[in-house]
Amino acid sequence: MLSDADRTRLDALFADLDAATDSFLGYPVSKDFDCAELTRFLAFPLNNLGDPFAESTYRVGTKQMEREVVAFFAGLTRAPEGDWWGYVGNGGTEGNLYGLYLAREMHPKGIVYFSEATHYSVLKNLHFLGMRHIMIRAQPNGEIDYEDLRETLRIHRDCPPIVFANIGTTMTEARDDLRRIRALIDELVIREHYIHADAALCGGYAAFLEPRPAWDFDDGADSVSISGHKFIGSPVPCGVVIARKRHVDRIARGIAYIGSLDTTITGSRNGYTPLVLWHAIRRLGVEGLRERAQRALALAAYAEAELRAIGVPAWRNPNALTVVFPQTSARIRHKWQLATQGVAHIIVMPNVTRAQIDEFVADMRADLAPGEQDRCIG
Amino acid sequence: MLSDADRTRLDALFADLDAATDSFLGYPVSKDFDCAELTRFLAFPLNNLGDPFAESTYRVGTKQMEREVVAFFAGLTRAPEGDWWGYVGNGGTEGNLYGLYLAREMHPKGIVYFSEATHYSVLKNLHFLGMRHIMIRAQPNGEIDYEDLRETLRIHRDCPPIVFANIGTTMTEARDDLRRIRALIDELVIREHYIHADAALCGGYAAFLEPRPAWDFDDGADSVSISGHKFIGSPVPCGVVIARKRHVDRIARGIAYIGSLDTTITGSRNGYTPLVLWHAIRRLGVEGLRERAQRALALAAYAEAELRAIGVPAWRNPNALTVVFPQTSARIRHKWQLATQGVAHIIVMPNVTRAQIDEFVADMRADLAPGEQDRCIG
Repeated sequence: MLSDADRTRLDALFADLDAATDSFLGYPVSKDFDCAELTRFLAFPLNNLGDPFAESTYRVGTKQMEREVVAFFAGLTRAPEGDWWGYVGNGGTEGNLYGLYLAREMHPKGIVYFSEATHYSVLKNLHFLGMRHIMIRAQPNGEIDYEDLRETLRIHRDCPPIVFANIGTTMTEARDDLRRIRALIDELVIREHYIHADAALCGGYAAFLEPRPAWDFDDGADSVSISGHKFIGSPVPCGVVIARKRHVDRIARGIAYIGSLDTTITGSRNGYTPLVLWHAIRRLGVEGLRERAQRALALAAYAEAELRAIGVPAWRNPNALTVVFPQTSARIRHKWQLATQGVAHIIVMPNVTRAQIDEFVADMRADLAPGEQDRCIG
Repeated sequence: MLSDADRTRLDALFADLDAATDSFLGYPVSKDFDCAELTRFLAFPLNNLGDPFAESTYRVGTKQMEREVVAFFAGLTRAPEGDWWGYVGNGGTEGNLYGLYLAREMHPKGIVYFSEATHYSVLKNLHFLGMRHIMIRAQPNGEIDYEDLRETLRIHRDCPPIVFANIGTTMTEARDDLRRIRALIDELVIREHYIHADAALCGGYAAFLEPRPAWDFDDGADSVSISGHKFIGSPVPCGVVIARKRHVDRIARGIAYIGSLDTTITGSRNGYTPLVLWHAIRRLGVEGLRERAQRALALAAYAEAELRAIGVPAWRNPNALTVVFPQTSARIRHKWQLATQGVAHIIVMPNVTRAQIDEFVADMRADLAPGEQDRCIG
């Protein structure tokens, strides 16, 4: 039994989390998931041990649902019929690590190219995997500088390029264009190459945008990583990674040689998050997700317009949920939990309401009026 | 809303899991956790972003509880006062990957030594990290062959040894003796070395065994990985990794150089599992865990004796929860979800009851009696 003091601490934590969850706009995390009917499954020691497509003697898991989740995202990412594989992992970073690992196995002498707007975890991953890499300039909107990429590829035509493309950068939600990247590689007649799409944020809705960004397998990706706790929402971080099956088969041969058929990174795997994602996609379906994206996009446009109306030079990349503006006061940064890096942003995830945007804009206006930071905004 | 068909599928899954959870003895997973009072926290998008000891602008997490969990295990592993760091990750494999990563950063020219009884995921990790390694013979009980290790170390005295020690192998729960390993290294006056203890299974109770195995920081470990879903129990896989802080600081310097202070592997991290572990250690305390270990050990001894009484040549390593015996029939393997690898085993985790052991022994007896496989055992 928990002591009364510990129980009080849990209650205090609950209250803190409740307050903190209520007021964040700075992180790309949907808060409107509803998994109440799934909590009964937490009575079991769930573990989707190893490959989701292979059965294990350990049967306390949710691999069937996991396979359906992967198949759903294979559809959204236009993965080639019969030539895809994937699993539900612990988030976008694990998916990126997996994609880079595949790339390294395919092209041990490859060089990884990625823009300076790339999330810092990617450099950490590259160091982890010991991969040679070159950082490419980003354009002011956060998209990779294709000229710099072309020049750099040209200088290293003897090494297979591994392009780590951002489908939604952390700060400005910029999307690198896979078709342009492929065209650069083709123009230089480089036959051996690999493209990984980090669609942690946008993977949940890029398929519904018009015009559709060039981001998926049909556009040239070899692997795609998508976060589950971002656009869709989940109580704990999770993600889906999908790759061309023939790449994974190549790794699998190497791994079978060492006596294992497990092509996942961690072996023991969370069996609850596949249920959370399955529940969401079965509840919403493709049409539900499309509407979810459209509503959020409309509200992001509203937020941008309202900020500009009060004189804040806010801007968005085309069809982005992320509204970018100059650094704010510490008060606003703390209240709305904004991550800042030179500029600031809010991310209008599907759970964000118009009332929250209005309150945020009012806070920003108060900040602009000198000496009025503490005045109550009507 | 979920369709009726999908709801029926969830109910069927629940029933399957309920049945499958009831009858497994082959995996080291405790099933007697009770997290009912924590499920309310799943309403929040929990994420213990980055280093548990660093605050983040994202405040929807459980880092305070996570730090207490790490501190608790630092105590159990006799980590040096003021010189430890750790985090709650996704399981034993992530902890092992982290330990090997630290070892590689400390000793880029090191060679990893590990016994042939080591879990297959370690070879996968070594391949992932690109580390040079040599497999050492195991003794019949699964413990590393110290003679083979000594000879192999002697031949490679010019390379810093990185010993990956098993504190409970997968098949026989054999524990490599850290003091003997340290003595071998000292005898060869090798000054640069690293020892990682994979205590996935035994880390939850090794501290309570008498005699205490040589497995922790005081015995010479540089890092220790412990699973949370094994001895303690958790609805999803989790684990704790602890390392000497000065090693982590060395990595941190490298990572700060690339613009990040995040020394964890995945960045976004599960904020629910630290609560599950915190809840368990606050509820049980050191004394509760000690009793839990003693009860399980007594039942493991009983299982071994009962199997031997019916003529099965069962055996255990000293103070082990794992009872080893020859390969069984497919019927028993399937019913009790036994992992087999030459030999078979049951693992008497704290949730296992005497009634289950009796039923299992009865099944084994039925199997021994030719032609009686289908007879009902009274």
